[in-house]
Amino acid sequence: MKFDKASPQSEKLEVSVYECEIHLKFRLIEDKTAFSDRSELLDFLIESFIIGPDEYLEPLQSLVTTQEISEVEASPQMRRQLMRLRNSSELA
Amino acid sequence: MKFDKASPQSEKLEVSVYECEIHLKFRLIEDKTAFSDRSELLDFLIESFIIGPDEYLEPLQSLVTTQEISEVEASPQMRRQLMRLRNSSELA
Repeated sequence: MKFDKASPQSEKLEVSVYECEIHLKFRLIEDKTAFSDRSELLDFLIESFIIGPDEYLEPLQSLVTTQEISEVEASPQMRRQLMRLRNSSELA
Repeated sequence: MKFDKASPQSEKLEVSVYECEIHLKFRLIEDKTAFSDRSELLDFLIESFIIGPDEYLEPLQSLVTTQEISEVEASPQMRRQLMRLRNSSELA
């Protein structure tokens, strides 16, 4: 039935908005000067972490949580994108 | 004086062990299937985050803390590496 809302929609993209949290803790051997530029510090540390553990880096904790949230909590820009994705998926 | 510990050592590498923490929180538009492989989830989310904000991703929080710690807290592997770095810096 065309408007049966309970029908499976396996061909559609099941896009949603997720709230994601990442918590990383690690020990790192570095030269003091590497920490002087605070604006680059986050990128620098993330890149150090994704290289993986070695004699310079010892991971202590890696936590990740994801939770599907209501799309009304997302920014207008993201809600528009979500609508576009769903529309193009319905047309496909 | 050769053994004066207070003398400046500006030519040496000032390598130390740091404990680093990164806390990221963001909203992400994704298809449900992207979250099915838990073993790849952390890498997938970190890579999504470093691409930067766009209509698929809205950063909510990016915290980073670094703290110099005593090297006796580091793994034996890292302590050895630290020693190697300091020795090679002294020889340079």
